[in-house]
Amino acid sequence: MAKELTPRAENYAQWYNDLVIKADLAENSAVRGCMVIKPYGYAIWEKIQSILDGMFKKTGHSNAYFPLLIPKSFFSREAAHVEGFAKECAVVTHYRLKNDEKSGKIVVDESAKLEEELIIRPTSETIIWNSYRNWIQSYRDLPILINQWANVVRWEMRTRLFLRTTEFLWQEGHTAHATEQEAVEETEKIINLYADFAENYLGIPVIKGRKTEEERFAGAIDTYAIEGLMQDGKALQCGTSHFLGQNFARAFDVQFTTREGNLDYVWATSWGVSTRLMGALIMAHSDDNGLVLPPRLAPVQVVIVPIYKSLEELGRVSETAVRIRAELEAAGLSVKFDDRDTQKPGWKFNEYEMKGVPVRITIGPRDLENNTVEIARRDTLEKQVVQGNSVVQVAKGLMEEIQQNIYRKSFDFRTNNTFRVDDWEEFRDIMQNRPGFVLAHWDGTWETEIRIKEETKATIRCIPFDAGSETGKCIYSGKPSDKRVLFAIAY
Amino acid sequence: MAKELTPRAENYAQWYNDLVIKADLAENSAVRGCMVIKPYGYAIWEKIQSILDGMFKKTGHSNAYFPLLIPKSFFSREAAHVEGFAKECAVVTHYRLKNDEKSGKIVVDESAKLEEELIIRPTSETIIWNSYRNWIQSYRDLPILINQWANVVRWEMRTRLFLRTTEFLWQEGHTAHATEQEAVEETEKIINLYADFAENYLGIPVIKGRKTEEERFAGAIDTYAIEGLMQDGKALQCGTSHFLGQNFARAFDVQFTTREGNLDYVWATSWGVSTRLMGALIMAHSDDNGLVLPPRLAPVQVVIVPIYKSLEELGRVSETAVRIRAELEAAGLSVKFDDRDTQKPGWKFNEYEMKGVPVRITIGPRDLENNTVEIARRDTLEKQVVQGNSVVQVAKGLMEEIQQNIYRKSFDFRTNNTFRVDDWEEFRDIMQNRPGFVLAHWDGTWETEIRIKEETKATIRCIPFDAGSETGKCIYSGKPSDKRVLFAIAY
Repeated sequence: MAKELTPRAENYAQWYNDLVIKADLAENSAVRGCMVIKPYGYAIWEKIQSILDGMFKKTGHSNAYFPLLIPKSFFSREAAHVEGFAKECAVVTHYRLKNDEKSGKIVVDESAKLEEELIIRPTSETIIWNSYRNWIQSYRDLPILINQWANVVRWEMRTRLFLRTTEFLWQEGHTAHATEQEAVEETEKIINLYADFAENYLGIPVIKGRKTEEERFAGAIDTYAIEGLMQDGKALQCGTSHFLGQNFARAFDVQFTTREGNLDYVWATSWGVSTRLMGALIMAHSDDNGLVLPPRLAPVQVVIVPIYKSLEELGRVSETAVRIRAELEAAGLSVKFDDRDTQKPGWKFNEYEMKGVPVRITIGPRDLENNTVEIARRDTLEKQVVQGNSVVQVAKGLMEEIQQNIYRKSFDFRTNNTFRVDDWEEFRDIMQNRPGFVLAHWDGTWETEIRIKEETKATIRCIPFDAGSETGKCIYSGKPSDKRVLFAIAY
Repeated sequence: MAKELTPRAENYAQWYNDLVIKADLAENSAVRGCMVIKPYGYAIWEKIQSILDGMFKKTGHSNAYFPLLIPKSFFSREAAHVEGFAKECAVVTHYRLKNDEKSGKIVVDESAKLEEELIIRPTSETIIWNSYRNWIQSYRDLPILINQWANVVRWEMRTRLFLRTTEFLWQEGHTAHATEQEAVEETEKIINLYADFAENYLGIPVIKGRKTEEERFAGAIDTYAIEGLMQDGKALQCGTSHFLGQNFARAFDVQFTTREGNLDYVWATSWGVSTRLMGALIMAHSDDNGLVLPPRLAPVQVVIVPIYKSLEELGRVSETAVRIRAELEAAGLSVKFDDRDTQKPGWKFNEYEMKGVPVRITIGPRDLENNTVEIARRDTLEKQVVQGNSVVQVAKGLMEEIQQNIYRKSFDFRTNNTFRVDDWEEFRDIMQNRPGFVLAHWDGTWETEIRIKEETKATIRCIPFDAGSETGKCIYSGKPSDKRVLFAIAY
């Protein structure tokens, strides 16, 4: 029995942690801040990977693989970049252990000290642009549209499963272009692709926009982001796409001969989403009974639970269950028939509620007599009795309906928790007592941004692309502003 | 133009390296021993991954992910294991860099020294069994059948692209079982799965067998391996499956309640293949013109090259080419139509020969008149003129035929280079002058094994499962032996 989640209303952070553990998604490991992604959690990540990978390939990108380890000196080449990442780097200094004869213990072999320390990649711009230098001579070698699926390490002091871990899994795209315009278009194309994925697969409505200088990626000219709103009213950044200008090309001396015969530095973008999306997925939709998964990302879309008193009854129920499973699979659904006799139906109901399986089909002896099954949907917990010959049609319909419903619920939640605010007291009150997205005027200065953060914990999540022009006064300083920006307390 | 490979006969090692570079598969990076896998090479690896992943899942395995970093103390728990890996470990000692005020350079922040050093995983038995301790209480929790796709680091002194690199990509399976028999069966199941993959996808015939104690995995009771023979007569180990007994369960105190109510240690296996398979694939089949790829692993199976003098001709040829491409794709083939006008057909022919595309279709104005195309196959370089309406049938047939032919060639090569030897001088002569697989008697001792290696560089690749019983005398010591073992000089 798994009904042991801390309710959201009681302690949202504890609810999240309970859920990740009890739905068997991930757990902490013996290494500080590093998680183990368990098979059920990893199966969801594989779905995310496979869909995104298809979207990248469809837009002309190829996968490749660059080294895990980066020479320390590469890091220092781009000033803002090293400034942004130096404080959270795992550093490799030696390449051998040995047996210490005195203590009999295994120790680091001091004679195997590296001449230059290596950094475990926190992101790969430097090592990749060092390679691109040899790949690019002429405009004919451009564009380069490469993505890699990889692990990265950022030494985080306060970690939370999926949301912020020392090691995490991600994809990082790194593209090289002949013109500024082409690079900007790529940056936009990807943020739109991420938004499409977030809305149509994760079921999370997102706001697209530009980051302020303060929140920009270290080394970027411009960072675009998509921001989602979680059930506790906090924002979660779900993906970023960076226009890097010629910064990394300059740092690594990557020049090319243009169509006109001149030498110029190459234009760059980079973009990524990570296992953090798992955190977004969990927090956006789940409830006090457990996970709620959008059908498009559910490893098991339908579970069939038999009801029986005797083995003879189980035999008869199984016959029907196996036939229905085959029909559902033929219709493209992934189905599990849980005929374990070590657990009772009630236990199984709770288990699959906890794991967020979108549709549960129950079959018992009475159903056999009536040629019916009971179908329950995870998102609303509603049940219906369905004639045997319409099971496939109903289940397929529910996949679409649940996917839409989850999105709509998130969308309505966001609508109800997005506020246009023009008064500083109201702003503070919202951030303190009922956080959500706040659209407010800002004077465009770093000083104001920092003070608002210090006083309310709220940050500017982005300057929405669709902010529109509107004359107003900065919520904090009262100075003039020409558009609203998106504030929230963020994960 | 890419016809610049060193011929195999002149310098096989150089030919291999040339080919990896010129076929755009991989290159060395700025980090010693770490390679960059380029998009074309990575596309082949993705095919390998996807097929193996399907085979693992079909046999009941799930993917998961465990941390990259392993506490040093974990390593010391299993004595043979640490002995085997300590000398090639990348060690993380610090978690922060800082700006040195004196030099103005970025240096390691000595105040951020880890209390316990972390090792970048060279393999994950230790961290995984430390997790399994919490997952396993009872026989009901078994078996656990988990695989992970990951990067690992082993500090190699002499590296070669794909064959031996400091960082490499691999999959590692780690299973836990209630009985010895079940674990042994798993070990066998996986070595058979690997052999199936090697023969039916890589097109490389392999010999399955058991490793000697000397060649066994550090911490295993038994290591099974598959061994392939490369064109230079050297052996390449293409995969290993280890029966670990209860060694890691003891080291990490993983006990379970048996069905009978007793406490026992859990039985374990682990198994893996790596990007080394790319090296096998390249070396087994390719020729002095470039890569030869088995169709089942070729990212592009058919390339269409247009012949034309004017843009008007290109337009007419393209119309037919695009139609044929659509027909081939509808038949399930992956097709590229190379209509770049920056390169001549001859250049393209060489390029796709270098890259090992199995089938090339050439279409020119005369073909349009005659309703024909020219089809060339990469493995034999034979060409044929084919009627337009039978292109799909011929191309599909060639996929199967080339796959079989590549395997048959490798099989015949192995047959012609496998020797049953009973005379020490002949053994030495073969190893020195015309290396290959040698089946010879061995007295079963470590001393003899080492001496043979010292005198000839040959090692016992495995004791083949199908060795059969045969009375004889050890090739080196003359002592009695009851079966032949497989010797070769190995990569």
